[in-house]
Amino acid sequence: MNRIKAEIISIGNELLAGITVNTNAAYLAKQLRSVGVETFWITTIADQKEDILAALKTASQRARVVISTGGLGPTPDDITKRTICEFFGVQLKFDAQVFEDVRRFVTKRKFFLNQVNREQAVIPECDRVLRNLKGTAPGLYFNRNEVHYFFLPGVPHEVYHLTEKDILPMLKEIFNLQPLKTHLLRTTGIPESRIIEKIGDLVETYKNIRIAFLPRFRGVDLRFTAPDNNARTLSDFDALVNGVRQRLQKYIFTEDELEIEEIIGRILKLKLFTLSVAESFTGGLIGDMITNIPGSSDYFLGDAVTYSNESKMKLLGVQAQTLEKFGAVSKETVTEMVRGVQKLFGSKCAVATTGIAGPTGATETKPIGLCYIAARVGDEERVMKFEFGTERIMNKRRGAIAALELLRRLLLKID
Amino acid sequence: MNRIKAEIISIGNELLAGITVNTNAAYLAKQLRSVGVETFWITTIADQKEDILAALKTASQRARVVISTGGLGPTPDDITKRTICEFFGVQLKFDAQVFEDVRRFVTKRKFFLNQVNREQAVIPECDRVLRNLKGTAPGLYFNRNEVHYFFLPGVPHEVYHLTEKDILPMLKEIFNLQPLKTHLLRTTGIPESRIIEKIGDLVETYKNIRIAFLPRFRGVDLRFTAPDNNARTLSDFDALVNGVRQRLQKYIFTEDELEIEEIIGRILKLKLFTLSVAESFTGGLIGDMITNIPGSSDYFLGDAVTYSNESKMKLLGVQAQTLEKFGAVSKETVTEMVRGVQKLFGSKCAVATTGIAGPTGATETKPIGLCYIAARVGDEERVMKFEFGTERIMNKRRGAIAALELLRRLLLKID
Repeated sequence: MNRIKAEIISIGNELLAGITVNTNAAYLAKQLRSVGVETFWITTIADQKEDILAALKTASQRARVVISTGGLGPTPDDITKRTICEFFGVQLKFDAQVFEDVRRFVTKRKFFLNQVNREQAVIPECDRVLRNLKGTAPGLYFNRNEVHYFFLPGVPHEVYHLTEKDILPMLKEIFNLQPLKTHLLRTTGIPESRIIEKIGDLVETYKNIRIAFLPRFRGVDLRFTAPDNNARTLSDFDALVNGVRQRLQKYIFTEDELEIEEIIGRILKLKLFTLSVAESFTGGLIGDMITNIPGSSDYFLGDAVTYSNESKMKLLGVQAQTLEKFGAVSKETVTEMVRGVQKLFGSKCAVATTGIAGPTGATETKPIGLCYIAARVGDEERVMKFEFGTERIMNKRRGAIAALELLRRLLLKID
Repeated sequence: MNRIKAEIISIGNELLAGITVNTNAAYLAKQLRSVGVETFWITTIADQKEDILAALKTASQRARVVISTGGLGPTPDDITKRTICEFFGVQLKFDAQVFEDVRRFVTKRKFFLNQVNREQAVIPECDRVLRNLKGTAPGLYFNRNEVHYFFLPGVPHEVYHLTEKDILPMLKEIFNLQPLKTHLLRTTGIPESRIIEKIGDLVETYKNIRIAFLPRFRGVDLRFTAPDNNARTLSDFDALVNGVRQRLQKYIFTEDELEIEEIIGRILKLKLFTLSVAESFTGGLIGDMITNIPGSSDYFLGDAVTYSNESKMKLLGVQAQTLEKFGAVSKETVTEMVRGVQKLFGSKCAVATTGIAGPTGATETKPIGLCYIAARVGDEERVMKFEFGTERIMNKRRGAIAALELLRRLLLKID
């Protein structure tokens, strides 16, 4: 099977200044992969004619699909349109349909149509206009010498819109391709080098299967990809995935593209359980993560972020003598917090966090990163002590993940 | 003044699969810029010998500084080290100092040293080893034909560590450069095309000053850069920034690299005010944002995330008849929420949100995205109605920003 190679060209001074992170490229690569087109190069360049021409030339020599983002907006630093004309040897022209789309978009938002908007309807003569219903700059498609070029604006939700509406269906039709078989194993609690030790021989045996190790702060993700759809390859693929699954079993947290807050949500929905949260260390992050999931109001009752001793006592009923004797950052306090919040909201399940997120707040006996987490399901309760690092935001994220993982294991009765 | 051009080469199949977003490149570009080195190209390629060699060759012909990340880890998919040897014509050798660093790093974390760790101390003969105290793969530095090459591992906090400890000080010394003058204006509440209309003539007059328009969901950032440090250029720079500031005044929200939650924190600290939050629409995000700021426990007392009617009544004292008559998503409810949370925590200031985040929950009269926000400082109170979009996570983010902005304006008595 021939691999369809793609190149993504990201145009924008803001990307090169490090002000904007290139999420568009990651999104596009993932979407392309889902239809069987593999990204081999992502090239980020400035809004400069010479650089754009050079990048297009290079891409035209090595890729079958070229997708460019950015540089199509109304601002004066955007010179992409004229450069596109030069590269393909075409002219700019006023497009009535595009102007109508721009007019509708602008007036719907109660802005006034202006000269800048009119200029947005002046576009290079292309093989197909990708109508943009979420913004003012349309996408452009060219087909030259068996290479397929797509030019998109840089605003992320417009990129998503045009990719899903036009690019993916067009690519499927053009190449008539089956997607590559992939599988994901998400682990937690085991470092990358230990994983290699445990599964190195399997990786060696099934060399033909590609495997990527993706370290995250919550653990290492393993992504397997079959290079083709031959029967032999697919059987090797299954053997490798099954082998790795067996060796890493207790560290595997999900096999889907899911975050832990989604898994918690699914379990709670299935069991018809409700949840409440008490946060000190994590400051609202757990509540935020849980409520990012659509439908979370079905099981999530609420969250008491108690950042002061007073609020821990008043809202959660933590005893003054507990705080005095053991301190706010203690096993005893987190236990009273989780019991208190379960009672406060009348929920079946509860989690609580307390700790020293840093960079200040450490004492002689309690270092930055120290954190206690408790979880309850009915009368069953677990409490764990953690020692995270020194970076505040990282600590909060790790604490939130650990809290949800503690709850998950309690819910599923895993040790 | 000669511009020092840099190229960043990001190596990693996970970047090309779209599984990982390339935050390292944005970080590096920003850091380089801060010492006066400008990134012109960011090239993302696979862990493949030919691609790495091609990228290094291209970079060596156009850049003075080349920084590569990724491909130095212990996993079998990393072939960067051997490719580096081939490119520079050097050999792999065992480095005792690196081995000692790896040993210390691994044993400190109570993991066992294994064969994989030993292989990490086998590195290409380079001009300088950048010792990595935050991970097991060291950085490598080469100087060939006036081009300076840095090879780093791919784990973000290791990249930050080696960049700050080694790369930036080395570049400052090598090039003895002054940083370029830049300025940032962050706006909110005005679309990009309106900004162009308002300031287009100024941009035209001071064409020599570079200006980047960076659309964010909370508004457009404008970044100005002086291309050199000549007196004339700097005077034009000031004239342009002052002119734009005057035209956009009421939309400018900060001139620093600050987020709104930091600005709120600074105001509260200055005034010795305390803050509490009641969240329904935003589900904990406001608390999370506020507690991301170090020292926020000085002014932040807590957050009641009340996701059910019961909890709004029980914790915040919202009246049953208010919920019945006007609904949970109403001006009346959010007003009782903000008053209730202010009383509950005994804080000087308070904000509250209620709304329909979506994708479900809309009624005939209340669409998805409808949101009411209230803020209080002492007895002064403001309430606003918003109609955001249809995407849940975007809605939460916009609601949180709007709530903090409402509070900021009330604190500073701006209309």
